[in-house]
Amino acid sequence: MSTVLVSGSSRGLGLELIKQFAALVPENGLVIAGARWRTAELEELIRSNQGRVGFVSLDVSDESSIIASVQEVKSLLGERPLDILINCAGVHSDTDGKVANMDDLMRQFSVNVLGTHHTIRSFLPLMATSTEKKIVTISSIYGSMTNARAVAFAPCPAYKISKAALNALTVQYALSYEDEGFIFFAVNPGWLQTEMGGEDADLTVPQGATAVVNIIRAADKSTNGKFKNIQVNGWEHKYNGSDLAW
Amino acid sequence: MSTVLVSGSSRGLGLELIKQFAALVPENGLVIAGARWRTAELEELIRSNQGRVGFVSLDVSDESSIIASVQEVKSLLGERPLDILINCAGVHSDTDGKVANMDDLMRQFSVNVLGTHHTIRSFLPLMATSTEKKIVTISSIYGSMTNARAVAFAPCPAYKISKAALNALTVQYALSYEDEGFIFFAVNPGWLQTEMGGEDADLTVPQGATAVVNIIRAADKSTNGKFKNIQVNGWEHKYNGSDLAW
Ligand SMILES: NC(=O)c1ccc[n+]([C@@H]2O[C@H](COP(=O)([O-])OP(=O)(O)OC[C@H]3O[C@@H](n4cnc5c(N)ncnc54)[C@H](OP(=O)(O)O)[C@@H]3O)[C@@H](O)[C@H]2O)c1
Ligand SMILES: NC(=O)c1ccc[n+]([C@@H]2O[C@H](COP(=O)([O-])OP(=O)(O)OC[C@H]3O[C@@H](n4cnc5c(N)ncnc54)[C@H](OP(=O)(O)O)[C@@H]3O)[C@@H](O)[C@H]2O)c1
Repeated sequence: MSTVLVSGSSRGLGLELIKQFAALVPENGLVIAGARWRTAELEELIRSNQGRVGFVSLDVSDESSIIASVQEVKSLLGERPLDILINCAGVHSDTDGKVANMDDLMRQFSVNVLGTHHTIRSFLPLMATSTEKKIVTISSIYGSMTNARAVAFAPCPAYKISKAALNALTVQYALSYEDEGFIFFAVNPGWLQTEMGGEDADLTVPQGATAVVNIIRAADKSTNGKFKNIQVNGWEHKYNGSDLAW
Repeated sequence: MSTVLVSGSSRGLGLELIKQFAALVPENGLVIAGARWRTAELEELIRSNQGRVGFVSLDVSDESSIIASVQEVKSLLGERPLDILINCAGVHSDTDGKVANMDDLMRQFSVNVLGTHHTIRSFLPLMATSTEKKIVTISSIYGSMTNARAVAFAPCPAYKISKAALNALTVQYALSYEDEGFIFFAVNPGWLQTEMGGEDADLTVPQGATAVVNIIRAADKSTNGKFKNIQVNGWEHKYNGSDLAW
């Protein structure tokens, strides 16, 4: 767990993952924030972590931006491989009324699914000599078809469908790369108090990020191809660390 | 079961569904083939069924074509509502080597998922006064994440991901429209000897179509939001009519 790259780290969960990993990596470790802009919070993290936090410009919806960012990450890493890639960049949107009104499906697909695919395939080569090779997709319980009725109140069908497709993408990668020692898995990070989650959400951003970090640290070969729920003390009725049903 | 529309009925499963429904609908029934072109086989079906089989030009990847086809279907139906809509149009493609090489994801999404979404939302209004209101999506066992390892040999990750997303779309429609009496479900039609399935496939096209027709006839409110396997005598180890796991 020496080198980590997180996409979508300008704010929200991604930003907090950068912060927490910066406190966890060893002396020669490096945590790289991939984001579309350097927010004040990111600047402060970079400044206060004296070389242990780096930044690369990364728009996951633009494959040429991803390809350019690979070169930047490569020079930041030097001889080191990339150990952990966390695909956190994501967009959310609502549909007014019934599903027939849904007009945001391609936009959700292109960022949440295709953007993740392009990011993964571009950074895979930098992970080849790592002994960890963990690739995480930040999914959502909204992507679970098994659980769809329980969250039918949430008016975001395109987001839900995109997260189901993201899960399916994760499974395809998991099966394709397990022979090379990669560990791919999807994580439900919980309902978090970010811009996306809103202030009524269950958990603070640090609570969610800590739970995601715990899953990533514990992940091993048996985690490959799974959809993991976070585990949060006091929230076991909702966040019990179990494998989620697709 | 008086009026039926099948998309993707120029050939393969869709064509055979037109043939079998033509033999099942009552005297005043109508089976409408939605396809990009009138194949010789379709011409023959239309000719031999004396007014019980109609044709509309329908390219599901082009929303303006869909909207134009709704007007044509409306005039073919006259006073009658549309009872059954079968979304059979679909494309399949392979990826050479590992998933990182996958370049066909958006194409698969745009036909298999977005094309189905646009078709459903455009034809829904013609079904409002039907007493059946059955909307079927022709999915695939390849869309099941639970079953992914068993079919990992098949080199079509983009197709698999698109069918998982199609299942998720089906679930969103099922939950959104059950209050209006609609019944939405996904069907695994089996591995069929079509152009897509190839000649080594398990079942003849008539076997697969008969099994799909049986599921549609038996479907009731309890089928809404499910992923159904076909049932074929002698093939119970593979096609046992069960609900499939996502
Ligand atoms: N919050 C929740 O309750 C919740 C629940 C389940 C899952 N999730 C998932 O968790 C992840 C993080 O969400 P969040 O709650 O932190 O949301 P957020 O506060 O809205 O932050 C979203 C992040 O994604 C970035 N992003 C969006 N499009 C991007 C692109 N094309 N390229 C690069 N970055 C992009 C944003 O960057 P910009 O600043 O440049 O826009 C931002 O950093 C998402 O995948 C989300 O679906 C969140
Ligand atoms: N065969 C199998 O083993 C199998 C297994 C599981 C699921 N399925 C599913 O079953 C369905 C039918 O497949 P099949 O085996 O009959 O395949 P097929 O022989 O390749 O036929 C595909 C049909 O879809 C039509 N189509 C493709 N793109 C279209 C578009 N944009 N607009 C309208 N029609 C379009 C084709 O029309 P054109 O003639 O104009 O190209 C053709 O009629 C598909 O959804 C497929 O994924 C098949």
